[in-house]
Amino acid sequence: MRATLIYAAGDIRVQDVPDPKILKSTDALVRVLRSCICGSDLWPYASKPATEFGSRIGHEFLGVVEELGSAVTGFKRGDVVVAPFMYSDNTCDFCQEGLQTSCRHGGFWGVGDVDGGQGEAVRVPLAEGTLVPLHVGEDSALLASLLTLSDVLPTGHHCAYSAGVNPRTTVTVIGDGAVGLSAVLAAKRLGAEQIILMGRHVSRTDLGVEFGATEVVAERGAEGIDKVRELTAGDGTHAVLECVGTLRSFETAIGIVRAGGVISRVGVPQYGEIPMGGGEFMNNVTLTGGVAPARAYIEEFLPDILEGKIQPGKVFDRSVTLEEVPDGYRAMAAREALKVIIEG
Amino acid sequence: MRATLIYAAGDIRVQDVPDPKILKSTDALVRVLRSCICGSDLWPYASKPATEFGSRIGHEFLGVVEELGSAVTGFKRGDVVVAPFMYSDNTCDFCQEGLQTSCRHGGFWGVGDVDGGQGEAVRVPLAEGTLVPLHVGEDSALLASLLTLSDVLPTGHHCAYSAGVNPRTTVTVIGDGAVGLSAVLAAKRLGAEQIILMGRHVSRTDLGVEFGATEVVAERGAEGIDKVRELTAGDGTHAVLECVGTLRSFETAIGIVRAGGVISRVGVPQYGEIPMGGGEFMNNVTLTGGVAPARAYIEEFLPDILEGKIQPGKVFDRSVTLEEVPDGYRAMAAREALKVIIEG
Repeated sequence: MRATLIYAAGDIRVQDVPDPKILKSTDALVRVLRSCICGSDLWPYASKPATEFGSRIGHEFLGVVEELGSAVTGFKRGDVVVAPFMYSDNTCDFCQEGLQTSCRHGGFWGVGDVDGGQGEAVRVPLAEGTLVPLHVGEDSALLASLLTLSDVLPTGHHCAYSAGVNPRTTVTVIGDGAVGLSAVLAAKRLGAEQIILMGRHVSRTDLGVEFGATEVVAERGAEGIDKVRELTAGDGTHAVLECVGTLRSFETAIGIVRAGGVISRVGVPQYGEIPMGGGEFMNNVTLTGGVAPARAYIEEFLPDILEGKIQPGKVFDRSVTLEEVPDGYRAMAAREALKVIIEG
Repeated sequence: MRATLIYAAGDIRVQDVPDPKILKSTDALVRVLRSCICGSDLWPYASKPATEFGSRIGHEFLGVVEELGSAVTGFKRGDVVVAPFMYSDNTCDFCQEGLQTSCRHGGFWGVGDVDGGQGEAVRVPLAEGTLVPLHVGEDSALLASLLTLSDVLPTGHHCAYSAGVNPRTTVTVIGDGAVGLSAVLAAKRLGAEQIILMGRHVSRTDLGVEFGATEVVAERGAEGIDKVRELTAGDGTHAVLECVGTLRSFETAIGIVRAGGVISRVGVPQYGEIPMGGGEFMNNVTLTGGVAPARAYIEEFLPDILEGKIQPGKVFDRSVTLEEVPDGYRAMAAREALKVIIEG
């Protein structure tokens, strides 16, 4: 089959790889209908050292069940299913606590003998715990929104939910990428009435306003902090959803969090240490978040998408075929595209 | 009157100062019955640069209401009251949220024209919001335990409560000082069944066991981390209560927190930056805690002390008179005493 590999920074190739086969009784084979490129894929795309043999890449996909291992129950051949961005057994103590990202038997797509998501098919380990049936057909118009269940939507939700967002909390979202916009949508869904979106790309912040942002702050750094404080009578917001991952963004978060408030982060940290030894202690600032256990949230969001209450698939503003994936990476890295969906 | 001042590291003096007077209608005058020395007083005692004029010190006291400003209601002359370690109006939005340490009108004892707690009397600003009647007489045998309501007990409780300790959480307490031992007591009271106490001073950890610790780990650093992991099947504990404040202690906390767990800190940070950019993100580790809003917790703990359910006053293992306070500091700094109470 054809699949995407990364060989080095800037070097993405679509090439022939062995067809996946059932290896264990707990596996399933899924033919991929839709996959996409993640902001986190752009980190290796920016910095991966050159390698002789490429690595499989991609961790967001939905598709059709083609074959099931003998131990897999809960769905059948032909079902359309979505996979969260890590596989997990969904039965261990961590999974039962809703932390499937720390599953005792789980792991990442594209590592070892596990397929990546940006390809024609995937062998899914621990299929019964990992996959969720979507109850739609292969030709559903909702596939783009349903694909966001795999990562970007639950990641935005994890950020807001971990921060304790509710109707009484004021919220700032840092970052107008697909995760930041999903965090806006999630904060709105949790009832927040003031949602300040920090971002500079008008087409993106416009979508943020459509998703529920009440104010947009285009300024960054000290000016951005001043602006958010102006909008909150000097106090900052109860929740700060940090959806970028740079030290600069984290410092902005520190500058705009209200006393007693929460900084929740879901952008992969591009820093080793953070300044949390000073006023954050006096002000009882909490830091939470992390890699989102997407699996924990899929069933909760599925009805909202099926009923059309939310349209998270609007974050996809460019579509490519599998053979065009290298250009999809280029477009996302160049910020020509917000998020790229791979169709067919 | 006589009161305690600090002039420099190691230079504590008890001397004459002006008698406090009611300055505002919201003030009260309190004659101090008991006060004490805090672990946090030892930081200036260790490092304060020499000054020509000393600064008032002490922030934990209980005493008798001697005089009330015209606007103060809720108690009368002769009532025995306790003061939390910061004063607050108890009516602003932060106070209503239980974050009296961020009160819009509150502040610290011993700053500006506000008396310190280690003296014969204190003018209490915002008295109605700050003071809590104890419903005991001046000669109550419970005064030592009631004095802990001012700081050390609510600080230990804030640490455990902020970490979400409950009957299903495993707990490690780092530090066998008075705050650490109070955190043990608080975790036990919140229902924790496994409470590992990290500390090297046997007389202190013995009291920790009396307060509810189920295991004691005397090792520090990497050995201490290994030991706690051994006691938890390799996982670490859900809650880590960091009651020291050094970078080394924080690094221990990072080493023993379970995935999805919480590090709660109440020791004043002696560091600027913390290493929270790596596995803590993958493991969804939360950092919480800070300066404890003692005022928020006093009413909750008062019945337990009055009924004898808890005896937090056991943290006091040395008593001095006001004139002997300099020796009290020396004894605490030398670790001859766990916590020093000032009586008479």
